[in-house]
Amino acid sequence: MSDVDNLRVVLVATRNPLNIGAVARAMSNFGVFRLRLVNPYDAAFREARSAVGASELLAKAELYDDVGPAVADCRLVVGTTAGAKRDLQQRLLRLETGARAIKKQLKTGPVALLFGSERYGLSNEELSHCHWVMRIPTREEHGSMNLGQAVAVCLFELVRAGGAATTSPTAAEKKERAPATSGDVERVTGSLFEVLDASGYVKPRAAAVTKENLRRMIRRMKLNVDDTDMWLGMLRQMAWKLGVPEKNKK
Amino acid sequence: MSDVDNLRVVLVATRNPLNIGAVARAMSNFGVFRLRLVNPYDAAFREARSAVGASELLAKAELYDDVGPAVADCRLVVGTTAGAKRDLQQRLLRLETGARAIKKQLKTGPVALLFGSERYGLSNEELSHCHWVMRIPTREEHGSMNLGQAVAVCLFELVRAGGAATTSPTAAEKKERAPATSGDVERVTGSLFEVLDASGYVKPRAAAVTKENLRRMIRRMKLNVDDTDMWLGMLRQMAWKLGVPEKNKK
Repeated sequence: MSDVDNLRVVLVATRNPLNIGAVARAMSNFGVFRLRLVNPYDAAFREARSAVGASELLAKAELYDDVGPAVADCRLVVGTTAGAKRDLQQRLLRLETGARAIKKQLKTGPVALLFGSERYGLSNEELSHCHWVMRIPTREEHGSMNLGQAVAVCLFELVRAGGAATTSPTAAEKKERAPATSGDVERVTGSLFEVLDASGYVKPRAAAVTKENLRRMIRRMKLNVDDTDMWLGMLRQMAWKLGVPEKNKK
Repeated sequence: MSDVDNLRVVLVATRNPLNIGAVARAMSNFGVFRLRLVNPYDAAFREARSAVGASELLAKAELYDDVGPAVADCRLVVGTTAGAKRDLQQRLLRLETGARAIKKQLKTGPVALLFGSERYGLSNEELSHCHWVMRIPTREEHGSMNLGQAVAVCLFELVRAGGAATTSPTAAEKKERAPATSGDVERVTGSLFEVLDASGYVKPRAAAVTKENLRRMIRRMKLNVDDTDMWLGMLRQMAWKLGVPEKNKK
């Protein structure tokens, strides 16, 4: 098994089925086979003619209604942006730098790489699921790439024979505890939101924005598996004391 | 003037005008503006809708009847191939290696990079104009890339920040907010402890150990100044709701 088997390419709200086909072709070229689609605009994508040589990959693409479930099994979630004008709330890395971090993570578990819609890119809500954001070093005056081309460039950088990228992790890095999955991190976000809501911290009108801010903040904390357990335990106790009704355990 | 001003992208016998448009867009993204076309199949290429943001570049594309004149002013001519089966008569380099040689040459004079037709690639006659041939490291089982994607990947490799260490931080990376002071981090630890104590989470006998564990965990979160403020605000609200007596403000 190769490390890129751990990569999931996630297309969010893609408008043009031909672009989905082009992405599938580039994935197949570079040996990446796990495609996930969140709310594609056109259900006809599985017939995209542009998926030359990649129709099987396209047939196996997984469909989701929301970014959360689409990245739930991933320990690292990376967004992409054309980036020039956007006032990002997250760390923005050049592809060359970001790819090194992704490659390291691919050795240990699933990583999601998100691409937004052709017209608007990733929304702030969608970006709030990401640990950080990456951009291809395009010109400032014309930053926005075609979707299929952007995916091809990112995947090439990930399979590229790298000088520095090939360094294997040190013993200390290996020993470092596993980062939590996105699903677990999202549970921490949800529990914290409930506790804050019960405390009167959340203004009803700003609930969505508050939740996005919490999500971003919790992602920045880089929780590992043990930390996640500890937080869930603490928040459960606070929720109980504050009288938050217990939910069904998942 | 940048070195890539010396690069000429030469498309030979391209069949689909949309692909020419896609190539123009990728060129514009990466700051490469000299496009040459040898015998395109469809004269309507200048109207290609896929040339988003690159119509001027397309309008200035130069037309040739033959590869010879199209590369006459270049001191290095490099062909491209999907390459798996072909019995090449020339040296074949991986993109990563070839790009290094091209970059060196771009410092001193014009270089042509040739891409063949979507269906057949470059013919032996066309390849005979090339000093050597380059291939993108795709899978053997599915080597043939979409033309626009192949050009995008090659141009990215040419503008790519070389040698891992030389990438300079993006503006956003520089702007990244300052880490919190130890004093502030300790205040978060203290507030969290109070809230947990009021929730019944802290066992009286284990209070000291619990506080140590919290301190370690909060240190691992690497809070910045804004995060610290957000946590203190959230914890103050929880404390108030839980009836923790307010302390004197420091």
